Amino acid sequence: MSTVETMRMFLGDAQVEGVPGSDRGLAYGDGLFETMRVHAGRVSWWDMHWARLAQGAGRLRLRLPDRGLVEQQIEALDATPGMDANNVLKLLVTRGCGGRGYLPPSDNMPLWILSRHPAPPSPRASGLHLRWCTTRLAHQPVLAGIKHCNRLEQVLARGEWSDAGIDEGLVLDMEGNVVSATSANLFVLRDGGWHTPPVDRCGVAGVCRAWLLSASGARETRLGVEEVESADAVLLCNAVRGILPVARLGNRAWLPHPQVRALRQRLATANPAFIVPEDNV
Amino acid sequence: MSTVETMRMFLGDAQVEGVPGSDRGLAYGDGLFETMRVHAGRVSWWDMHWARLAQGAGRLRLRLPDRGLVEQQIEALDATPGMDANNVLKLLVTRGCGGRGYLPPSDNMPLWILSRHPAPPSPRASGLHLRWCTTRLAHQPVLAGIKHCNRLEQVLARGEWSDAGIDEGLVLDMEGNVVSATSANLFVLRDGGWHTPPVDRCGVAGVCRAWLLSASGARETRLGVEEVESADAVLLCNAVRGILPVARLGNRAWLPHPQVRALRQRLATANPAFIVPEDNV
Repeated sequence: MSTVETMRMFLGDAQVEGVPGSDRGLAYGDGLFETMRVHAGRVSWWDMHWARLAQGAGRLRLRLPDRGLVEQQIEALDATPGMDANNVLKLLVTRGCGGRGYLPPSDNMPLWILSRHPAPPSPRASGLHLRWCTTRLAHQPVLAGIKHCNRLEQVLARGEWSDAGIDEGLVLDMEGNVVSATSANLFVLRDGGWHTPPVDRCGVAGVCRAWLLSASGARETRLGVEEVESADAVLLCNAVRGILPVARLGNRAWLPHPQVRALRQRLATANPAFIVPEDNV
Repeated sequence: MSTVETMRMFLGDAQVEGVPGSDRGLAYGDGLFETMRVHAGRVSWWDMHWARLAQGAGRLRLRLPDRGLVEQQIEALDATPGMDANNVLKLLVTRGCGGRGYLPPSDNMPLWILSRHPAPPSPRASGLHLRWCTTRLAHQPVLAGIKHCNRLEQVLARGEWSDAGIDEGLVLDMEGNVVSATSANLFVLRDGGWHTPPVDRCGVAGVCRAWLLSASGARETRLGVEEVESADAVLLCNAVRGILPVARLGNRAWLPHPQVRALRQRLATANPAFIVPEDNV
């Protein structure tokens, strides 16, 4: 059995074989990442992913690798024998080595890693089953919105359950506002309109969230637990899995909702990576 | 010129040559570290460092490597030709690879890295020069106190200045309470008594801080900017540099204080790693 090449690592422009033990990503989570859906060999929403990465790099004052080189290497990895044309692509960029302690180097040589992972299984046909997490997200405006590598809060929240019957968990901020799921954004339908929590104090400004904000005309609204549980419909979304209808949250259950179905169909039309199997609409 | 071996990496019990690109420390800052002073070949406060690491591992539910093996490898690294008997030892432990996304593996094989660094230069004889940082620390009780690898707040705060005339920066929490310096704890003398900020919502429970809390009879007190600036004496401390008198904070200046000198002498008596040069008392 031959091994498919699923990972390439680089320091600046040069391919490398391993990560130095002194990398700042390893030491401090001093980096950014994007997790992307690849369909028929094309990266979905690549421009939006790169834009968010660039925004994060600006916020952290971290130099990114050359975009053209990254694109070229994504293609090269695609072209390796045995690579599935439908999968998940992760791009991790760290500040690399250097500096003294927390002090970042004035001009960093980024470490970056491209890796391929299997496409996720289709979601539960009847909709996701969710729970509430007890881990809360801290308010940190300078890190909110971007997809940085300080993710212990998400690791702790996701570590709260191992029951395979639960698909995702919703997390609150320190004031009790609902923020998102551990790895997806949240939208709720109330009084005929869609709402999603703002991500100005914590949470991630998801790429699928941005698409859906525009497509649904949703408003950014701070939501409490009660406002989610009493919603007419609830969905999660992320750039890998698209729109995921929610069927249960604790004891609350929702039937499939025509507005969720309509949004999934619009997304599938806009982006064939997210065509939903007939029995799963 | 021969190269002194300054780093060893391990996965569980086995020495390895590099860090896998899929390590969770790299992806999420999913790990812990200790930075320790080595004097005359002995690690200062080793028991306290290991205790804090164990506390952090309990909080993150992360398996540590075997303590005996770590101690054996520290000795082995010490015995390599050319190793200075006075230096800094860093131990980094990550959760290693595995799990799915944020979900941690149920039983992790830790990655751990021992590295040696030069001893820090003696501090400015007249005392440190400090500034106030604008980056604030978020309140996150589940991560407060432990020395985890989600350190972007510290990287951003330390990145605020490059002026070599400034030695350290003090950081506030989101409510305006003073927490610490970017890489040291803070003690202030007021009305004849020592005070240090609590680390229950953010900040690190430093090993030298613990020694000093006991030695000075200090109390844990929430302190505002004004209460630090109007203090009779201010000092920073950490496990690598011991007690560091502060001479300036912005426009505020302090003369050397006999109580700071007395504490430094007590520390030097208790721990010869922290003997202060005559011209630096």
